[in-house]
Amino acid sequence: MVLGHESSGIVKEVGSAVTNVKVGDRVAMEPGQPCRHCKQCKSGNYNLCPDMAFAATPPYDGTICRYYRIPGDFCYKLPDSMSLEEGALVEPLAVGVHITKQAGIRPGQSVVVFGAGPVGLLCMAVAKAFGADIVVAVDVNEERLKFAKQYAATHAFTPSRSESPEESAARIIKECGLEVGSDAAIDASGAEICIQTAQYVVRNGGTYVQGGMGKPDINYPIMAMCTKELTTKGSFRYSHGDYSDAVGLVAHGRVSVKELISKKVKFEEAEQAFEDTKKALGIKYLIAGPE
Amino acid sequence: MVLGHESSGIVKEVGSAVTNVKVGDRVAMEPGQPCRHCKQCKSGNYNLCPDMAFAATPPYDGTICRYYRIPGDFCYKLPDSMSLEEGALVEPLAVGVHITKQAGIRPGQSVVVFGAGPVGLLCMAVAKAFGADIVVAVDVNEERLKFAKQYAATHAFTPSRSESPEESAARIIKECGLEVGSDAAIDASGAEICIQTAQYVVRNGGTYVQGGMGKPDINYPIMAMCTKELTTKGSFRYSHGDYSDAVGLVAHGRVSVKELISKKVKFEEAEQAFEDTKKALGIKYLIAGPE
Amino acid sequence: MVLGHESSGIVKEVGSAVTNVKVGDRVAMEPGQPCRHCKQCKSGNYNLCPDMAFAATPPYDGTICRYYRIPGDFCYKLPDSMSLEEGALVEPLAVGVHITKQAGIRPGQSVVVFGAGPVGLLCMAVAKAFGADIVVAVDVNEERLKFAKQYAATHAFTPSRSESPEESAARIIKECGLEVGSDAAIDASGAEICIQTAQYVVRNGGTYVQGGMGKPDINYPIMAMCTKELTTKGSFRYSHGDYSDAVGLVAHGRVSVKELISKKVKFEEAEQAFEDTKKALGIKYLIAGPE
Amino acid sequence: MVLGHESSGIVKEVGSAVTNVKVGDRVAMEPGQPCRHCKQCKSGNYNLCPDMAFAATPPYDGTICRYYRIPGDFCYKLPDSMSLEEGALVEPLAVGVHITKQAGIRPGQSVVVFGAGPVGLLCMAVAKAFGADIVVAVDVNEERLKFAKQYAATHAFTPSRSESPEESAARIIKECGLEVGSDAAIDASGAEICIQTAQYVVRNGGTYVQGGMGKPDINYPIMAMCTKELTTKGSFRYSHGDYSDAVGLVAHGRVSVKELISKKVKFEEAEQAFEDTKKALGIKYLIAGPE
Repeated sequence: MVLGHESSGIVKEVGSAVTNVKVGDRVAMEPGQPCRHCKQCKSGNYNLCPDMAFAATPPYDGTICRYYRIPGDFCYKLPDSMSLEEGALVEPLAVGVHITKQAGIRPGQSVVVFGAGPVGLLCMAVAKAFGADIVVAVDVNEERLKFAKQYAATHAFTPSRSESPEESAARIIKECGLEVGSDAAIDASGAEICIQTAQYVVRNGGTYVQGGMGKPDINYPIMAMCTKELTTKGSFRYSHGDYSDAVGLVAHGRVSVKELISKKVKFEEAEQAFEDTKKALGIKYLIAGPE
Repeated sequence: MVLGHESSGIVKEVGSAVTNVKVGDRVAMEPGQPCRHCKQCKSGNYNLCPDMAFAATPPYDGTICRYYRIPGDFCYKLPDSMSLEEGALVEPLAVGVHITKQAGIRPGQSVVVFGAGPVGLLCMAVAKAFGADIVVAVDVNEERLKFAKQYAATHAFTPSRSESPEESAARIIKECGLEVGSDAAIDASGAEICIQTAQYVVRNGGTYVQGGMGKPDINYPIMAMCTKELTTKGSFRYSHGDYSDAVGLVAHGRVSVKELISKKVKFEEAEQAFEDTKKALGIKYLIAGPE
Repeated sequence: MVLGHESSGIVKEVGSAVTNVKVGDRVAMEPGQPCRHCKQCKSGNYNLCPDMAFAATPPYDGTICRYYRIPGDFCYKLPDSMSLEEGALVEPLAVGVHITKQAGIRPGQSVVVFGAGPVGLLCMAVAKAFGADIVVAVDVNEERLKFAKQYAATHAFTPSRSESPEESAARIIKECGLEVGSDAAIDASGAEICIQTAQYVVRNGGTYVQGGMGKPDINYPIMAMCTKELTTKGSFRYSHGDYSDAVGLVAHGRVSVKELISKKVKFEEAEQAFEDTKKALGIKYLIAGPE
Repeated sequence: MVLGHESSGIVKEVGSAVTNVKVGDRVAMEPGQPCRHCKQCKSGNYNLCPDMAFAATPPYDGTICRYYRIPGDFCYKLPDSMSLEEGALVEPLAVGVHITKQAGIRPGQSVVVFGAGPVGLLCMAVAKAFGADIVVAVDVNEERLKFAKQYAATHAFTPSRSESPEESAARIIKECGLEVGSDAAIDASGAEICIQTAQYVVRNGGTYVQGGMGKPDINYPIMAMCTKELTTKGSFRYSHGDYSDAVGLVAHGRVSVKELISKKVKFEEAEQAFEDTKKALGIKYLIAGPE
């Protein structure tokens, strides 16, 4: 994978047909260009387009460069109240928006989010913005959980290594006041045990979304899913409306993304920043553009 | 499990508030009585009611008896064109209707059904009645496949024991003209390898329904499901509208159930019939009521 | 119409099967009892039950009495943070919740609400709680508009008597930054000119909900509705989930209803209070129960 | 309006990126080209694109010409079993498909279609193909009704000029066995009295679709729509999937369109054919291309 797909920038030039942005506008940049002709594109699911050209996914280059060419309708003007830094975080936020939409979160509902990394945290924040009353963060890392609780979660839960998925689920339900289970669960961890636990934590007829990437195959409690008549969904990137919704959530103060920027580094320090992130020293490092 | 939940009968007595059926009516009998007060019942999903009293599921007795008491609204009058024998098959047909609705089959779509036993066959018939253009039957039993092809399937497929789930799926797609995969897949087998294959046979954004009962936990290609953004659903019994839809499908000649009755036995032969069915000597044995 | 259907109370006695509330609990009381047996009830739309027994709709008495008998599942326990006064306002709030759900308001959307009386105001508050970014209040009464703006609306609009519905709509779109029209419009006025204006204010493919009661027949721009491919819906009372969602919105501080209580009167002053309300001297008068 | 938007043809040349059709293929031609960049296009509703270039809608020319340039993905290959004549009728059939999808017709349902002209007839045929059990044709022209009954309707109804919309509706419900009203109604007439009658013929919670074009404003029973909580929708042309579904319905023998061709005329006779159609001497006249 070539690096760089979470980015914002300033419009330098526009084609004659572009009307939504003009030179000088600060914009969030949606990194994938669908074909616009296939069935998926025409049915409103361009994220599933088989001919997608996605920045930083070979053979396509990433956006870490001085000038980047992008169709006008994949640029989203940032309001004056939003910084370019926040604009760069629209990409992971759009991932969280898409996952949370897949989960169908409606006002008054409860959701359990497994994994308190960047995507999980953003799912919690979006779920809250969508009106969820109970947002449970699940993680084994106490510091992440603490952050999640301050940031967006209403409850934090640490699974014990000695308990089974069913036991963890029962404890989450009891400790977080979920009565017969949560309306939805989101996995943003990719961890097998989390995915298993999620199937037991959701109520009959509830929804589960696989947002995290992990092992291709896992041991899965399919009969629990079947007899509880769960709806489980995958989530892949973002599609129509997700990017603009993400900008809107930040612009209207419904979701805050600044907290996720651990450090701002110069372009020259980019390589070191990638190394540090791998060691989990921060949530998101922001690389400033070259002057 | 106490036996007997697929049944029809003749109304012998009605309470004073019953208006939908009268004494002498021949009716299909829906075997589960929900509480009518819980959230699931009031939201239209009474099949998920935690207090369901279901015939033949302990502690509730089955319907193999002379008189059976049942609420009026769970009796469905059979039109003159339908026999009591067909009425008894409304139950498994309602299971197939519910599964096929969960799969969201719409006219023009394609669906692959794994397992050509009674439920699988009925799913194929319902899918066709719902307008599916391509209905693929998958089974390892050649005789069942042959029956499926005559009964409702447009294509029949025998997986090879030497190929992987991905290879089977690729071959189904190619041999049955599914282009980028089927719109939906239904498992009515409960077999691990079928469930795995199904995840690869469905197109991006398509739907999978778990209808068959099998091992509680299986090895599952969760990342395929995730990146293809599948919607996968469980299916449990039947809910509002399924039973009446099942009667309507038979009454209007859209689905035929007579073919599924392998043999009609007397009440006294019931025990032997259950033994024979276990040995897979037939699809469905029909037990006549005592005179 | 017999009076009294917006009420709360304290549980005095419970039947042996009741588990959700106990003696002494303070509860909001949902005033309509559906039959639980018809197709509408079983499909999750009990508000459309033809055999509904609704308090204060003849031949059924209203709730203005010392003791009122009601099924347990139509009582909603008020959390300690909610007063009985707020509990009485759950009824009109549930009306607003149902209308706003019919409108399908999702986070980031825009909605124009016609009529700033109690129901219109509550629709605005619910729409905001559901995540609407733009909530336009439309009314000819300047004082109501001022209240709406302070209470929940982001924009207020006074139509001019000299302009056509199309002209009003064009001005709303322009003055409130709605670009190609609003995502949704709600009528809570019942006024012909409002209903007409609403059809022009909604964008192509948007949603309109008729919440207000007025003349049975009006002059309606059906071709505008047709070529813009609007979805228009009626809204009748409330159904599964609306009452509990209403309690939850108040309990979690997402909607405030106290502002709508203009005055609290004693039981003996009830008659005068009804007279005063007719003269529009207040929004809602609250009648305290007899000691 | 410039003439010609219902057409089929033979591919003469293809661009280098076209993969779905090749030179010599016989194709149905979808006459509208959306912008592919706006919100409507990207959300799957390209029929609502404000920048649509639609054949025969000024300033765009119609398709009555020797060669017509069209994007590859708006050409739909006809199977060998379909004639070019049938291909030309895919356009009005796609209109019927879109209307019937808007009506949400599912297997087992009932629908009343007002107007037995080409669009109404095709809606009836599609509704039946979608599984409707009761399809009522309503028209004042007895000959059209007779044709409708032979073609696709299960019931035919002639409203009396002396009865009110409510009375007509009551009589339709009674005579066609609709119990509490039809699940859906479609207007394909544009006539005020039909639109009014439709609101009374649909059951509580049912669906109404405005398919016919007529007077811009009509007298409309809005309170009936409101308290019955109807969903009413406009329908405009066709969108993603409708054209391919229309080809599939004919190809699989689910809908027959040949009956709608009253006469086939030579290119030179086109003008006279348009005159004859205006006098309602036939349903559809087919104009053969120049040799």
